[in-house]
Amino acid sequence: MARNRTSRKHRAAPQDTVVVIGLGRFGRALALELVEEDTEVLGIDASAEVVQSLAGSLTHVVRADATKEEALRQLGVHEFDRAVVGIGSNLESSILTTSLLLSFGITHVWAKAISDAHGRILTQLGVDHVVYPEHDMGQRVAHLVRGRMLDYVEFEEDFAMVKTKPPADIVGLPLGNSAVRSRHGVTVVAIKRPGEDFTYATAETVVRADDTIIVAGRNRATERFSELR
Amino acid sequence: MARNRTSRKHRAAPQDTVVVIGLGRFGRALALELVEEDTEVLGIDASAEVVQSLAGSLTHVVRADATKEEALRQLGVHEFDRAVVGIGSNLESSILTTSLLLSFGITHVWAKAISDAHGRILTQLGVDHVVYPEHDMGQRVAHLVRGRMLDYVEFEEDFAMVKTKPPADIVGLPLGNSAVRSRHGVTVVAIKRPGEDFTYATAETVVRADDTIIVAGRNRATERFSELR
Amino acid sequence: MARNRTSRKHRAAPQDTVVVIGLGRFGRALALELVEEDTEVLGIDASAEVVQSLAGSLTHVVRADATKEEALRQLGVHEFDRAVVGIGSNLESSILTTSLLLSFGITHVWAKAISDAHGRILTQLGVDHVVYPEHDMGQRVAHLVRGRMLDYVEFEEDFAMVKTKPPADIVGLPLGNSAVRSRHGVTVVAIKRPGEDFTYATAETVVRADDTIIVAGRNRATERFSELR
Amino acid sequence: MARNRTSRKHRAAPQDTVVVIGLGRFGRALALELVEEDTEVLGIDASAEVVQSLAGSLTHVVRADATKEEALRQLGVHEFDRAVVGIGSNLESSILTTSLLLSFGITHVWAKAISDAHGRILTQLGVDHVVYPEHDMGQRVAHLVRGRMLDYVEFEEDFAMVKTKPPADIVGLPLGNSAVRSRHGVTVVAIKRPGEDFTYATAETVVRADDTIIVAGRNRATERFSELR
Amino acid sequence: MARNRTSRKHRAAPQDTVVVIGLGRFGRALALELVEEDTEVLGIDASAEVVQSLAGSLTHVVRADATKEEALRQLGVHEFDRAVVGIGSNLESSILTTSLLLSFGITHVWAKAISDAHGRILTQLGVDHVVYPEHDMGQRVAHLVRGRMLDYVEFEEDFAMVKTKPPADIVGLPLGNSAVRSRHGVTVVAIKRPGEDFTYATAETVVRADDTIIVAGRNRATERFSELR
Amino acid sequence: MARNRTSRKHRAAPQDTVVVIGLGRFGRALALELVEEDTEVLGIDASAEVVQSLAGSLTHVVRADATKEEALRQLGVHEFDRAVVGIGSNLESSILTTSLLLSFGITHVWAKAISDAHGRILTQLGVDHVVYPEHDMGQRVAHLVRGRMLDYVEFEEDFAMVKTKPPADIVGLPLGNSAVRSRHGVTVVAIKRPGEDFTYATAETVVRADDTIIVAGRNRATERFSELR
Amino acid sequence: MARNRTSRKHRAAPQDTVVVIGLGRFGRALALELVEEDTEVLGIDASAEVVQSLAGSLTHVVRADATKEEALRQLGVHEFDRAVVGIGSNLESSILTTSLLLSFGITHVWAKAISDAHGRILTQLGVDHVVYPEHDMGQRVAHLVRGRMLDYVEFEEDFAMVKTKPPADIVGLPLGNSAVRSRHGVTVVAIKRPGEDFTYATAETVVRADDTIIVAGRNRATERFSELR
Amino acid sequence: MARNRTSRKHRAAPQDTVVVIGLGRFGRALALELVEEDTEVLGIDASAEVVQSLAGSLTHVVRADATKEEALRQLGVHEFDRAVVGIGSNLESSILTTSLLLSFGITHVWAKAISDAHGRILTQLGVDHVVYPEHDMGQRVAHLVRGRMLDYVEFEEDFAMVKTKPPADIVGLPLGNSAVRSRHGVTVVAIKRPGEDFTYATAETVVRADDTIIVAGRNRATERFSELR
Repeated sequence: MARNRTSRKHRAAPQDTVVVIGLGRFGRALALELVEEDTEVLGIDASAEVVQSLAGSLTHVVRADATKEEALRQLGVHEFDRAVVGIGSNLESSILTTSLLLSFGITHVWAKAISDAHGRILTQLGVDHVVYPEHDMGQRVAHLVRGRMLDYVEFEEDFAMVKTKPPADIVGLPLGNSAVRSRHGVTVVAIKRPGEDFTYATAETVVRADDTIIVAGRNRATERFSELR
Repeated sequence: MARNRTSRKHRAAPQDTVVVIGLGRFGRALALELVEEDTEVLGIDASAEVVQSLAGSLTHVVRADATKEEALRQLGVHEFDRAVVGIGSNLESSILTTSLLLSFGITHVWAKAISDAHGRILTQLGVDHVVYPEHDMGQRVAHLVRGRMLDYVEFEEDFAMVKTKPPADIVGLPLGNSAVRSRHGVTVVAIKRPGEDFTYATAETVVRADDTIIVAGRNRATERFSELR
Repeated sequence: MARNRTSRKHRAAPQDTVVVIGLGRFGRALALELVEEDTEVLGIDASAEVVQSLAGSLTHVVRADATKEEALRQLGVHEFDRAVVGIGSNLESSILTTSLLLSFGITHVWAKAISDAHGRILTQLGVDHVVYPEHDMGQRVAHLVRGRMLDYVEFEEDFAMVKTKPPADIVGLPLGNSAVRSRHGVTVVAIKRPGEDFTYATAETVVRADDTIIVAGRNRATERFSELR
Repeated sequence: MARNRTSRKHRAAPQDTVVVIGLGRFGRALALELVEEDTEVLGIDASAEVVQSLAGSLTHVVRADATKEEALRQLGVHEFDRAVVGIGSNLESSILTTSLLLSFGITHVWAKAISDAHGRILTQLGVDHVVYPEHDMGQRVAHLVRGRMLDYVEFEEDFAMVKTKPPADIVGLPLGNSAVRSRHGVTVVAIKRPGEDFTYATAETVVRADDTIIVAGRNRATERFSELR
Repeated sequence: MARNRTSRKHRAAPQDTVVVIGLGRFGRALALELVEEDTEVLGIDASAEVVQSLAGSLTHVVRADATKEEALRQLGVHEFDRAVVGIGSNLESSILTTSLLLSFGITHVWAKAISDAHGRILTQLGVDHVVYPEHDMGQRVAHLVRGRMLDYVEFEEDFAMVKTKPPADIVGLPLGNSAVRSRHGVTVVAIKRPGEDFTYATAETVVRADDTIIVAGRNRATERFSELR
Repeated sequence: MARNRTSRKHRAAPQDTVVVIGLGRFGRALALELVEEDTEVLGIDASAEVVQSLAGSLTHVVRADATKEEALRQLGVHEFDRAVVGIGSNLESSILTTSLLLSFGITHVWAKAISDAHGRILTQLGVDHVVYPEHDMGQRVAHLVRGRMLDYVEFEEDFAMVKTKPPADIVGLPLGNSAVRSRHGVTVVAIKRPGEDFTYATAETVVRADDTIIVAGRNRATERFSELR
Repeated sequence: MARNRTSRKHRAAPQDTVVVIGLGRFGRALALELVEEDTEVLGIDASAEVVQSLAGSLTHVVRADATKEEALRQLGVHEFDRAVVGIGSNLESSILTTSLLLSFGITHVWAKAISDAHGRILTQLGVDHVVYPEHDMGQRVAHLVRGRMLDYVEFEEDFAMVKTKPPADIVGLPLGNSAVRSRHGVTVVAIKRPGEDFTYATAETVVRADDTIIVAGRNRATERFSELR
Repeated sequence: MARNRTSRKHRAAPQDTVVVIGLGRFGRALALELVEEDTEVLGIDASAEVVQSLAGSLTHVVRADATKEEALRQLGVHEFDRAVVGIGSNLESSILTTSLLLSFGITHVWAKAISDAHGRILTQLGVDHVVYPEHDMGQRVAHLVRGRMLDYVEFEEDFAMVKTKPPADIVGLPLGNSAVRSRHGVTVVAIKRPGEDFTYATAETVVRADDTIIVAGRNRATERFSELR
């Protein structure tokens, strides 16, 4: 338990800190990513084992029953304005905790949902940002299973970015001359040479057969493009 | 149970069909996305309730105990060459099922892992594609919690795409003149006018204050850019 | 199961019928009281035993899993405009069901809460009428345990009615002459002679020692009055 | 645990104190109401968490297994003469505890019943005051669900008090002239102006449209009256 | 299930039949002994397996939940006047069933108790005959463990009968001459020659060394007598 | 735990002490009866609560897992020559413990059986004295339920003693003249005047109507006798 | 279930058939090996799944509760004279079943023990052949873990056979000349050329470096021999 | 817990020590056999009771959760090159632990399998030596149940050694003259006189009727030989 270490600092400026409740796979990855990016985190979990395993990694990490108002108040959670509820295994705990955060008037609350019903309840309670990790990753991986793409991300209803290998007809000439937009309806936005990092593509970029590229466009157009050889 | 419907068709050409075992949130979303994209799916789950709820939506959906070799063989699973193991709640079931798929010699196997140990075992067994939905979504959401971005995706170790609102200093002039690459280290790759769809950005595109843009670049550069006002 | 009996009638005019979900002690008593007063009731419970025991007593009574949207829609619950959620033993079921009723846009929803947190969540979801039977009866009985009253009801923050035996100083003379209001701060509103029913009291009513009376007034005044001998 | 605090005082005069066993929703509300009204309470519960949460609120509160004679004797429970058994979740515990209280010869015992069978057993054991919170509140709320009343209480088999809005035909003239008793069979016993407290009504009281009133009368008469507009 | 066989007969004259509820070791032995002695028995147990195993042995034997009033009434149990409750493993079931039998007004009720508290509750409910098999057999066997007796029964507070081998000083002469009463404070009431049955002893009976005898007397006297050699 | 108290004494002379393992209703009653009769007892039970409740009552009482050889040896159980296994709720524990006692070579072992199979196994293991409390008490009580006797004990296959009220035809004359043996086949062996203790009956004893008597004889004869009025 | 198939045949000559009760890993391998060697087997297991999976492989295989005498008698088990009890997971079932077999007077009973206590009880009951698979294989594998042997079997307290590679000093000359007995205290009893089967070794056999040999001798001698290079 | 004792020694030279994880029947026997043969053992088990019972018998024995990488590293397990996984009751623990050992790069890993699926997974993970105690002992005992042999071991697919009594036709003459190989296809490799140890047989050995012999040969030949009388 790393409770004592936390007390002074996060009380001073809880606005600069994000409270992450529920440190399972989702909450843990989220919290560690925040710390990596120099954001302070107050992590809370009901399991002593979980808390101990993160004691050295998060700014503050405390074992507490986040479904109890008193427990949260003692940690000053009511003074934060950004909170993430990563509790996922237990619908009731997720709702009890989220309800408390909202009753504290916390401005920005993210909460993970494990089902449609869970998501609907979180929204009815007043949560703005409901996250569905299993569902969203399922959709994303579907495109990889199906086709030859290396990665696939939808940014909007019908606008995706796809990491893939370049088809033969755009290899060897500057992108500006490849007519990739008119012929395939996609734009090459980034390119990676073997052994190098990704960089943005310009009209002058000449794609080689062993490069990896990222193209943007409507879902179907990007899919079709990745199937070309 | 939709077993009978399935028999003829997927036996004819299981190579064109993806078998998805475990239809929880992840497997269900993945399977539905495949069907949406006109890929045939044989869905398998141990729960009659789950199977029934998907009976009208997947090409074939069957209730079976996928940890038993005989059950899988009766469904012809050993003849497929693409399989997804979405079983997540139970380590043992995931491993028993994946072990069978590998013993069948199925070429492409994706499997969901719920912990590092689970992922290591899947890899030691011989699975190529191990997926960590909770972990990956945790990392992705971390960037939204922390900053002002609307969406964030990492395509590679240090190359991300970010959906955000444009800062004042690139508004009102063609992107080619905005020096956004030199000043901020990012490229604007797509743009969305209010009420319209996303489209690719060119050097001539003039960004307006109420547009939404997607920028590409190194992680930190995209983060810093999204913090500008 | 009395499902078939229900189909025609309540579909015709669900507005005239009250749906009561959860037929434990609270829901059962409520539903039976409604039927007694000639209001049609559609009772729903997850237990076959409970449903069977009420099959002859309620207008319609059905076994269904009220946490499932499909189950409720099949019963036409989304067309009602008055619903009571009596589910009490299981927080999660109560919330899942109530969330569905609200998502249907049902105008009047009553829901039983078993704890403060439960009540707060129901309110955050959007329930107008939250009922706390155990809590309210606890308060009511406290007054009987403590004093000599026969019954005690608070109608408002500080206005109670008390059933008690009359003190000596108001016996034997018309109430109008007893100065009960000025001396004790209470009004005698009803009176019951041994062997008769309660009736309203007037200024002419003469209270006898073996009558039972109901007095109204501020909480403390009614309490003190009931302690007089 | 607040055991030590209790020892001296309640031993001195247990007759003035009420022992409340089982501090769930019912027992807790009852005990707090007693303390509010300056009655000393010895609260007993099997749960350390429950006891701790009430440590500051009740006169004395102790964790003990009230189904064991020795435990009760050590607390001096056998010397009290008023006891409430609020144990409700567990029939066996309720009966074991009540049986002990009766074997001590405690004069006034109230016990909560959760079913008819439970109530019958308590009565056969020799309990005078059996309370059914869920059942009684169910009946009370039924009247609110059904009609337009704001509150409803039955004091006797066929004599109820109802809080409601006044119908048009009694507004604007002194109650003495409104013929409310002869026409509607009810008596207006109290009235509340917006922003004020309830007070008793007299023949001179003039009811306004936005007042809230309490009327007394036979069940049906009060119901019908509350339906008038 | 032997339900049908029972219907006519025991309805005709339930007064002549004993209803035995709970057919564990105690109830089963009791019921079989009654049948052996030509008394009709209606056996009731919650377990199908138990009922089946006794189907051929008892007059009537039915599987039913004896804690439910309706179940008992359907079997006509309310018309019997002798009932035995052998339920022992479950305090709650024992009490619920016994409470029902008493509420039917059955005159003679025997009930097995598994603890002092259980016994006290049964008595408070109004049961006349409470039986403690484990306790009573424990006491009886204690005497055999301790001494050289072959059997020991206490008929009253301080009057026991003991089966034992005769001491040397009463062997070989008529009992009337043996002064066994005056010297040892016991009376020889029965005697058994090897290979014969027990018969009563008279003053003329001559005890041999290999006989077995039963002596009556105060507890200590019988004990001391059995220790003689 | 009363372990320390026990060490010296029972090691000195375990032959004079009885070890009783399993202190439920049977073992407890047996052990207390032994102590009452001045026999030393080493009581052993797996439950701390049970051990504590008997700490003041038995000579030595220890909490131990009697299914473990080491635990029994540490207590010196292998040096006793009289042991009682009262464990009844758990077949496996009973057998494991009894097997150990027999492997120690203890001469006299009594063990309680809860079923015929249990009894057969105990006998096959080599136990001489198998006791069936529930079964034996069931048989004994059957006779009381059936007839008008006050108590009934079978000493042998067909020889019982019955406590009953005297029939009219033996009242008022010396037993020697009553022809009770020839007419009823029973012998009056003891008699109890109201307010006095039992004493043996002689030929001169005159039975009065309000006496209680004990008669001996064949089962049926004693039964029939007790039915006389 | 393959019950019907079994009825005629094994009733005809149960002496020629072995009954195997408990078809887990041990019992199943044993039963299959017997069938392989043309011995008829009646397999019995409590699990329908287990029975079904062996329905085609054993002569007769039946689902039954082997702890019940009636079930065994219906299958004619009491007429067999060779029985194996392979039940291992549950001490109680193993003992109940074995006790029944012994009470039937079956001559040859093998029973698997999972602990020393279990083995002792089986022996006390009267079982001749108690088998400890886990224990014996543990000992056998220990020798392989420790040294360079390929297999190790102890036939007697101090006489083992070891499969190993030959050391240099016995390679290339007839065994009769190798002085292997005098120098190493072991005898080469069998030899296997690569690609051939094992055959017995004679004095003329010349061992080659890539042969595998089996040597017999005292435990230590065989161990030391296998360590030679 | 014997943790401290272990620290220095096995860290010094873990190559000389075998780590045995899971100290049930199999692991315990294996570990004790190793110690007996002067091999150092580090035993690990999750149960404190198991560890304690072996504290005096194994070189080092520690309670630890072997499914956790950190726990194994703290014990230095990653530096060993011989490990045995005896965990058998729990598939998941066995796989998690084995996966860790393999990820450490330990050269020689033995693991016990409790089913075919378990064995297949262990092999896919990369374990060389998979052991099936129940299965192998089942096969071995089958031969004893079936025939008259005293012991039976298969060293290879079709080469067994059998301990048996000699048939009449080889008794009384030197083995070299008995034609046992030509007539029966087996070789007598060892012989045991009553009261002596086994020793190897030579052509000069004369077998007597009461000797015990070990013969080697093909499975069927050894079986048939043991059936001769």
